[in-house]
Amino acid sequence: MNSDDFRRHAHQLVDWMADYIETLEDRPVRSRARPGEILGSLPAQAPQKGEAMERILDDFRDVLMPGMTHWQHPMFMAYFPANSSWPSVLGEMLTAVLGAQCMSWETSPAAAELEERVMDWLRDALGLPGDFEGVIQDTASTATLCALLSARERATDFAIKSGGFAACGDQRFAIYCSDQAHSSVAKAARIAGFGDAALRTVPVDDKFALRPQALAEMTAADLAAGIRPLFAVAALGTTSSTAVDPIDEMGRICHQHGIWLHVDAAYSGTALLLPECRWMLGSARHVDSFVVNPHKWMATNFDCTAYFVRDVKTLVQTFEIAPEYLRTRADERVRNHRDWGIQLGRRFRALKLWMVMRSFGLDGLQAMLRAHIAHGQWLARQVDGHDEFERLAPVPLNCVCFRWRPRAAGDDEQAVERANRRLLAALQDDGRLYLTHTRLNGRFALRLVPGQTRVERRHVEAAWRLVTETAAGLARATDA
Amino acid sequence: MNSDDFRRHAHQLVDWMADYIETLEDRPVRSRARPGEILGSLPAQAPQKGEAMERILDDFRDVLMPGMTHWQHPMFMAYFPANSSWPSVLGEMLTAVLGAQCMSWETSPAAAELEERVMDWLRDALGLPGDFEGVIQDTASTATLCALLSARERATDFAIKSGGFAACGDQRFAIYCSDQAHSSVAKAARIAGFGDAALRTVPVDDKFALRPQALAEMTAADLAAGIRPLFAVAALGTTSSTAVDPIDEMGRICHQHGIWLHVDAAYSGTALLLPECRWMLGSARHVDSFVVNPHKWMATNFDCTAYFVRDVKTLVQTFEIAPEYLRTRADERVRNHRDWGIQLGRRFRALKLWMVMRSFGLDGLQAMLRAHIAHGQWLARQVDGHDEFERLAPVPLNCVCFRWRPRAAGDDEQAVERANRRLLAALQDDGRLYLTHTRLNGRFALRLVPGQTRVERRHVEAAWRLVTETAAGLARATDA
Repeated sequence: MNSDDFRRHAHQLVDWMADYIETLEDRPVRSRARPGEILGSLPAQAPQKGEAMERILDDFRDVLMPGMTHWQHPMFMAYFPANSSWPSVLGEMLTAVLGAQCMSWETSPAAAELEERVMDWLRDALGLPGDFEGVIQDTASTATLCALLSARERATDFAIKSGGFAACGDQRFAIYCSDQAHSSVAKAARIAGFGDAALRTVPVDDKFALRPQALAEMTAADLAAGIRPLFAVAALGTTSSTAVDPIDEMGRICHQHGIWLHVDAAYSGTALLLPECRWMLGSARHVDSFVVNPHKWMATNFDCTAYFVRDVKTLVQTFEIAPEYLRTRADERVRNHRDWGIQLGRRFRALKLWMVMRSFGLDGLQAMLRAHIAHGQWLARQVDGHDEFERLAPVPLNCVCFRWRPRAAGDDEQAVERANRRLLAALQDDGRLYLTHTRLNGRFALRLVPGQTRVERRHVEAAWRLVTETAAGLARATDA
Repeated sequence: MNSDDFRRHAHQLVDWMADYIETLEDRPVRSRARPGEILGSLPAQAPQKGEAMERILDDFRDVLMPGMTHWQHPMFMAYFPANSSWPSVLGEMLTAVLGAQCMSWETSPAAAELEERVMDWLRDALGLPGDFEGVIQDTASTATLCALLSARERATDFAIKSGGFAACGDQRFAIYCSDQAHSSVAKAARIAGFGDAALRTVPVDDKFALRPQALAEMTAADLAAGIRPLFAVAALGTTSSTAVDPIDEMGRICHQHGIWLHVDAAYSGTALLLPECRWMLGSARHVDSFVVNPHKWMATNFDCTAYFVRDVKTLVQTFEIAPEYLRTRADERVRNHRDWGIQLGRRFRALKLWMVMRSFGLDGLQAMLRAHIAHGQWLARQVDGHDEFERLAPVPLNCVCFRWRPRAAGDDEQAVERANRRLLAALQDDGRLYLTHTRLNGRFALRLVPGQTRVERRHVEAAWRLVTETAAGLARATDA
C-alpha cells in the first residue's frame, strides 16, 4: 500500500466516518451479537499474501460493524461515556500519522511541552490550585495506582522501592475509601502489595458520600492498633451515582495523620469547568493528587487521563529509572514524562486535548456540560413524577439512578429486583437505548447517564419513553 | 464544528498526512527545538471562546511541527523504532471515530472477539506454542508488570492479593534477569512491592546473553538462604544490542524451581515471523509468558503490545474485580479483557493490527523484516571494514553497536569516550540522522537500528556516510 492508495482509501474513510456519525441514530446503540458470533466468522489463520484494502474494509463494515456497541451514539447512556468529538478525531488522525513515541522530551519536544502547557490550561480551568502539575496518563486506574505508589514511597522514605515490603518489617498500612469508591482503588491496593486486607471501606451517608466522622474513627482505630494510615481516596462523583465525598473534611483528617489524599474525579471532575460546580472540590487545600478523564465527559478520545499532583518530586522519584540507553543531553533541563508514571512508551495524547480545548473553547465545553446536567435534572423530575418509578440517589449532575416499582410487585424486594432485571434486559436487547445498572443500599438500580457529546433533549425524552413503555409492556405481559 | 466542517478539514488533513510522509526526508529527523522554546510560544491560558480549526491547524504546523522528532522518518535509527504504516493509520482513523471503550465483551463484542482472533493469528505466526493465549496491552512495561504480578500471586496462592506482603511473613523472593535486561523489569519489581533488593542481575557472556550457569548458581544460593526464586526474565533481544538469552536453558532451571519465566521480546520478537529466526525462541517449553510489541517493528501504531500467557486462569484471577456496575449478563460466556491487565478502560487496538496483518500479509511483513536485517548486516560489515571504527556487539538482527576509534585517542578509553560523545552530539544536532547510544562492557557505544517501516538501503548508506564523514570532520577540527 503506497501513499496514493492511502489518499484514495483515507478520503473514502473520511466520508464514511462523517456518514457514520451522521447516521448513527439509524443503528442500534448496543450490538446484538451473540458470544462467539464474530469470532466464528473470522479466519483461523493470518493471510500469507497481502490482501486488498477494499476487501479488508468490506469485512470491517460487514463482519465487524454489526458487533460494535456504539459509544458515540447519543442514546449511549450506559456506564460513563467515553466521548469523542470532531476536533478530537482530527487530533487522533495527526497523532497516528506522526507516530511519535513521547517517552522523553528529546523524542518529541513539542509533545512534551504541549502536554505541560495543556495540563496547566486544564488545571486552571478546573479551578485546581496553581501548585498542582499535570501529566497525561492512559486511564484513571493507572493514575490511582500511581498515587498509591507515590504515597507508599513518601511514607516510607522510598524504603519499599529499594528494599521491598520486607524493609518495613512488621509495619502494616491502611488505605481508606468509601464503599462507593471505584474498583480501581482495590485493584491498586492489590497491585501495590497491600492487598485487600489493608483496604478500609468507610460507610456513606444517605447521599452516598463518605462519612468523615467514620473516617476519623477508622484512622484512630488503626493508629491505636499500630497500623499506619497511608492513603485515602475521595470520590468527586462516585461511579454508581456521582455522589461527592466531603473533600475538605477528609483533607483535614488526612493532613492530621500524614495520609496522602487522592481525589478520583474521573467522570464528574469535568464539571469543575463550571463555576456553579466548584463546590464539589472545595478548597482542595489538603489534596495531594487529583485525576480526571477528559476521555469521559470532555469530548476527547479515549485514552486521555489527566493526573495532577502537588509533589512532583515524589512522583518522579517513585518512577524514575535511567538506564544508559535512555539518557539524553537535555535530561537536567526538561520534563521526561516517562518518569511520571508506570509505562515507558507514551502516545502523543496532548494534541487531541489541545485541539478540543481550542475548538470548543471553555465556553463551548461549559455549554455542553450545562446541557447535559439539565438533561439529567429533567430525567430526575420525570422519575420523581412517575408513580411506578422511584429515584434511588440524588442527582448532583446527570447520572440518574432509579428503579421500576411495578404495582404487581408491591413491597416484595425480590420481585422488584426481578422486574428491574427483566426491564434492563428488555431495554438492552431492544438496542435503541443502552443503559446499565448498579446496586445502591442493596437495591438493584437502573442507571441512565445522558452525557454523550451529541445527546439532545429529544434523546433523553426518547430514552424515558422507552423505559416507561417497555415497563408497561412487561407489566401487561405479566398480567396477561 | 459540525460534520461538514469535519469533512472539509479531514479531507485536507488526509492530503497533509500523505504529503507529510512523502516529504519526510526533507525534514530533519530530530527536532532542533531548545528546551522551553515551544512552551514559551503557547498561550498561558485556554481560550474562553472556541477558535476556528484553520487557526488551530496553522499553529499545529507552524508552532508544534518544528518541535517534533519524526519517528516515521526512514533516518530514524535511534532507540527501537515505533513504526506505523498506511494500513495502521487507516485503522487508527476508524478506532478514533468509533471511540469504543473495550473494557468488557459487551461494551463492544466485535472488538473483544477480533482481539482474541488476531492474538491467535500472531501467536501462530510467531511460532509460539498453541496453548498460549494473547491479549493486547499498551506497553511491554505493563505486560512485564502483569507477568510479575501473576507470578507473585501464583507462588503465594493469591495470599498477597488478599493479605498483602504481610501475609507472607518473613518470606523473601528473588527476581532474575541479566544485567542487559530492560529497565522495565526493575521498575516492575519496585511497583509490585519487591524492591531493588529482590532483583538479581545475572552476568552475561561475551555476546551479552545471560549465562545460565550463573542463573543456576544464583537460584541455588537464594534457596540456600531461604529466599524463594520467583520470577525470571529472558530477553529475546536485549535493548542495548538485541542479544538473545538462552531461553530453553533458562526454562529448565526455572521449571526445576517453579520460577515463572517471562520472555521480553518487545522489539526482536517480531523477527520470529521469520523461520530463520525461530532459533531465538527455542522450544519455549517452560516459558510462562511472552511479550512482543507490534508497535515497534511490525508497522502497527503505538500503542499495541501483545502479551501471551499459558496460564490465563492465574492472569485473570490476579486482576479480576467485578463491582456490580461492571457486571453483564454475558460474563460467564465471554472474555472480559479488563480482567486481563491493570487498566479497566481499553482502546480498540486490535483493529489496526488486523488491518496491518491482512494488508501486508505474512509475506509482506517477512519481506520487510528480511530487508531490515540485511541493512543491519550490511552496516555491521561497514563498521568491521573501517579501520577507525569498531563493533562492540554481535548483530543477530539489525541493531548495530559500535564506536569510533580516532587515531588521536589511541587506547585512552576516556579520550575514546569523549570523542564518541562529541560524534553523537554532532550527528544529533545535525538532524539528518537520529541515532542514540548505550554502554556495553563499560564502553560508550553508538547504536544504529535501521528498522523504520520505510527505510531503504540508500538511507543506511547515507547514515554510514554521515557517521564517517562527521567523525572525519571532528578529527580534522581537533588536529587543526
